[in-house]
Amino acid sequence: MVKRIQKIPFEKLTPSGTSTLSPFNKPIATVKPGEEVEIETWDAFGGCIKTEQTRAQALEKGVKVPVNPVTGPIYVEGAEPGDSLTVEILGIELPSSGATTISPGFGSLEGWLNLMIPRTRISEIKAGKVLYRTDSGRIVEVTAEPFIGTIGNSPVYEAINTLTPGPHGGNMDCPDIRPGNTLILPVNQPGALFGLGDVHAVQGDGEVGGSAIEIPAVVKLRFGVKRHYPIAWPRVESPEEIMTVCSAKPLEDAARLAHRELVNWMVADYGWARDDAYMFQSIAAKSRIAQIVDPLYTVVAKMPKKYLKP
Amino acid sequence: MVKRIQKIPFEKLTPSGTSTLSPFNKPIATVKPGEEVEIETWDAFGGCIKTEQTRAQALEKGVKVPVNPVTGPIYVEGAEPGDSLTVEILGIELPSSGATTISPGFGSLEGWLNLMIPRTRISEIKAGKVLYRTDSGRIVEVTAEPFIGTIGNSPVYEAINTLTPGPHGGNMDCPDIRPGNTLILPVNQPGALFGLGDVHAVQGDGEVGGSAIEIPAVVKLRFGVKRHYPIAWPRVESPEEIMTVCSAKPLEDAARLAHRELVNWMVADYGWARDDAYMFQSIAAKSRIAQIVDPLYTVVAKMPKKYLKP
Amino acid sequence: MVKRIQKIPFEKLTPSGTSTLSPFNKPIATVKPGEEVEIETWDAFGGCIKTEQTRAQALEKGVKVPVNPVTGPIYVEGAEPGDSLTVEILGIELPSSGATTISPGFGSLEGWLNLMIPRTRISEIKAGKVLYRTDSGRIVEVTAEPFIGTIGNSPVYEAINTLTPGPHGGNMDCPDIRPGNTLILPVNQPGALFGLGDVHAVQGDGEVGGSAIEIPAVVKLRFGVKRHYPIAWPRVESPEEIMTVCSAKPLEDAARLAHRELVNWMVADYGWARDDAYMFQSIAAKSRIAQIVDPLYTVVAKMPKKYLKP
Amino acid sequence: MVKRIQKIPFEKLTPSGTSTLSPFNKPIATVKPGEEVEIETWDAFGGCIKTEQTRAQALEKGVKVPVNPVTGPIYVEGAEPGDSLTVEILGIELPSSGATTISPGFGSLEGWLNLMIPRTRISEIKAGKVLYRTDSGRIVEVTAEPFIGTIGNSPVYEAINTLTPGPHGGNMDCPDIRPGNTLILPVNQPGALFGLGDVHAVQGDGEVGGSAIEIPAVVKLRFGVKRHYPIAWPRVESPEEIMTVCSAKPLEDAARLAHRELVNWMVADYGWARDDAYMFQSIAAKSRIAQIVDPLYTVVAKMPKKYLKP
Repeated sequence: MVKRIQKIPFEKLTPSGTSTLSPFNKPIATVKPGEEVEIETWDAFGGCIKTEQTRAQALEKGVKVPVNPVTGPIYVEGAEPGDSLTVEILGIELPSSGATTISPGFGSLEGWLNLMIPRTRISEIKAGKVLYRTDSGRIVEVTAEPFIGTIGNSPVYEAINTLTPGPHGGNMDCPDIRPGNTLILPVNQPGALFGLGDVHAVQGDGEVGGSAIEIPAVVKLRFGVKRHYPIAWPRVESPEEIMTVCSAKPLEDAARLAHRELVNWMVADYGWARDDAYMFQSIAAKSRIAQIVDPLYTVVAKMPKKYLKP
Repeated sequence: MVKRIQKIPFEKLTPSGTSTLSPFNKPIATVKPGEEVEIETWDAFGGCIKTEQTRAQALEKGVKVPVNPVTGPIYVEGAEPGDSLTVEILGIELPSSGATTISPGFGSLEGWLNLMIPRTRISEIKAGKVLYRTDSGRIVEVTAEPFIGTIGNSPVYEAINTLTPGPHGGNMDCPDIRPGNTLILPVNQPGALFGLGDVHAVQGDGEVGGSAIEIPAVVKLRFGVKRHYPIAWPRVESPEEIMTVCSAKPLEDAARLAHRELVNWMVADYGWARDDAYMFQSIAAKSRIAQIVDPLYTVVAKMPKKYLKP
Repeated sequence: MVKRIQKIPFEKLTPSGTSTLSPFNKPIATVKPGEEVEIETWDAFGGCIKTEQTRAQALEKGVKVPVNPVTGPIYVEGAEPGDSLTVEILGIELPSSGATTISPGFGSLEGWLNLMIPRTRISEIKAGKVLYRTDSGRIVEVTAEPFIGTIGNSPVYEAINTLTPGPHGGNMDCPDIRPGNTLILPVNQPGALFGLGDVHAVQGDGEVGGSAIEIPAVVKLRFGVKRHYPIAWPRVESPEEIMTVCSAKPLEDAARLAHRELVNWMVADYGWARDDAYMFQSIAAKSRIAQIVDPLYTVVAKMPKKYLKP
Repeated sequence: MVKRIQKIPFEKLTPSGTSTLSPFNKPIATVKPGEEVEIETWDAFGGCIKTEQTRAQALEKGVKVPVNPVTGPIYVEGAEPGDSLTVEILGIELPSSGATTISPGFGSLEGWLNLMIPRTRISEIKAGKVLYRTDSGRIVEVTAEPFIGTIGNSPVYEAINTLTPGPHGGNMDCPDIRPGNTLILPVNQPGALFGLGDVHAVQGDGEVGGSAIEIPAVVKLRFGVKRHYPIAWPRVESPEEIMTVCSAKPLEDAARLAHRELVNWMVADYGWARDDAYMFQSIAAKSRIAQIVDPLYTVVAKMPKKYLKP
């Protein structure tokens, strides 16, 4: 039987509790390396957006909605500082709808489009498709490609809000953190103190308007511990690629960090010379702008595995 | 018979002549909309890198190599300011090898890797494959995906060097400007005063080390004129996608410009409402970091055509 | 008699304790609004740099030096969220010497100068002068203009490291936070949970190499509480100017935030119309680049008081 | 008798002529090193803003106003590539009023303040004072501190628009280029091909709204040539300071360039060791944000001369 970790009750969602990744919070559950775990998550709005009018109404009334709550901390047995935590993503269960919003003062084009009012779109999700309804009433079908938007371990000694990504993971909004892939995270505290939330049914590169198809979800994971394998930033492995996920401002610094981490990985684990790995990335690296709307921006740099070994 | 435009003789490569896109240069050829044209181009080094030792030697000896020379200006009959120029890319003929270099003071990781000496790698190109030879002598096969790195029209009234991309096109290093796709450029001068060069046999996203597989080439094109169709930035159409190509610093501004242009295109040609187009990009837009090594950085924003119309 | 708060003993300096501003730490002292307080501070290196050879040796030996420790949290009676804390800086007692370092991988020009080894310079401080000894042995006299580099309140719900500045204050490295001036800080927690350290005997604009004349010090302050006066970012008042202190990346965003805060201040407290305040800043605002070496960069925007009222 | 160069007649103001610094334009006058010259300049709007209603009206009617026209090119006898041109600023004659504007889509806070309409303020200038009239009708007196906003030589082989600053000078909007100081510019073409315009009666740091007190003026200059003294970026000398003026995006890159140039100057002309000059700037350099509204942003780094020599 699969272990299930329920989401934190709504009334227990608090800024310092569920809106941070932090060494100061007490674990809500303990898991063993190797066991399968199902984890329930709130959407990024703590479930508060129920209709296309909710957000504007909430802002009007000054209602505070929980900010990007995570389910955690989860204590992973045996994980120690200096290790890495592997998180195999086995599956994501989709709900029947998801919300997208744009708001004044937020989103990558805000300064240019001069939005005056927040807008919300609720999209139905059916048979693996997101059904986006345009202003003119046309339904556009987009294949669901669900992934985990916010996922990470406790930082070394800071409490970092769940809107911000960093070396500890956090709000990376990276579509490559999806079923079939494995996320690798630095362990900074005994037990890792892992948390996750903010699942998206599908997202465009950059998440340019500030939110994707935001959903509550049930995520199936398997944890593992790589002993004495310290890494500086989150990494992802798919069957075909190795990937590094770095966050910074301006965006070019996120890209530079990600490509440098990729150089470091090629050198440490695949025997490339440093300059050679660098030069080869000019020819064969791929990358993705994960998001340009959070307090730091996120880029994923990728190298196909087929090039790495003879 | 296909019209062929030969490359400028080496001794006639000059900074203000072949290393700018400019209204001040005289056309070297005239073409008609609709006719097929073959154009020969130098590689980005003006053909000066003949062995893996050349670049270091040239720098040592103070030899000046031509900087990213273009073949042009080419006068397109009937193109007038306010029109757009379409450039259908029909094919790119590959040579038998290409050069890649990294150099102190250049490339996205330069400040972090502290390169001390320039390095050059010559890769054989055979049967559609680039054969990259690692430091340890292993051959890595990368499929050639050739495209035009520098391509554009004359600016409105400036002479812009061919290392810099902008609204006029230029050194965008965008892999989507490839056979099968059509580039659309603003026309700023009668005849457009088109030029191109800097073909790459293949390139990683970001061109992080500063050069790809740099090759001389023969490019087959067909020009067209869209009357009274003014655009602000270069665009690309593939059979599946519409794309906008914008350049700025920092990199997030290139991304913002590209997504804004994509909003504008969806509004003008496909009937979307502005905010709706913006919100939908959070869900379904794709993007690519073309390069982060030129004086301005380039991002391509993309929208699948299947979503645009019922 | 002036109340004196001693610095934290060296063996009690810890990352989560003295290298964060945080709601999770227990106050080490309580002060009343209006009373004069003397506070002892460590220098940014926790007193570990004793000779010009220490830093290189410490790095060699892997010795961990405390990172920018602060003295705090200090609980200010009566300060509540929604209030502002005023901190009158009455005086700074200078020691007899201070340390300056540059290090590989740190400082604004690091990527360009390719430093290979860390360097430390110890400067004598005498009669209000810093005596900087150049490589060639010449003594350059620079007038001491001491100020507090790191100073702030607890954030709302995060624990933020003391290297990073922000809306809560922190490592702003702003030379205007000096004797004769008053700093105004947002209060986010009951008692404010104030901390300070990292005093500089003098600093150039930008602190470009990454450290100034770093000193331990005794700082004399008087606290006050402005009731129901919420502010978004730290502010400073001198007898002649009002100033806003904002931190962001890239640097232009720090400048924009600071000038926007200055607009807001002119509107709220001096009765200017918003656009008028903005336009007038083009004519009469001053600014200072405080630092470009910390995780976020800091700009101070200033408006002479003589222009604000009839 | 002082030689006088008249401003270009309004009907001869053209984009490629007076709105570029360029090697492609023919000199309008020749001057000798050492002789005093008076040069007339248009304001940044080519004199088109005559009332506080003009700009909005012009935009409404689609009238094109000349963009930041310069008086030039002026050929300086004997100046050759590899030399530097010195420009002693002897005086600036003020008119009786100047214009300030803010406009939608322009200015550092535009994205945040959502301006809907352009606004213009005409300020009287009298007895060395600018009399700014606030929205509420109060007159604020600001001391005039006139300087030259746009000033430079021809670039090496490009034609660069006069809104953009760079190594050649251009639209630096640097208040230190004022009477009593000497500007030093790289010479890229025989005769330097110098031009200037865009004088400001006074300007706040950053020119945050996008324009200062914009005036037509008569500027008195004396040119000189420093033989075989190549420099990379513009420099300024006042009686008390040496200064470097660099432009880039993001703003921190402008600051880095300026401080690096200052290191280079201290090394080349004052005998400092490189790392020593760098470290000392952390202690004693000053800087100024000249502007954050042009296509590249400008920072001035400064070092008091009293520290440079024994």
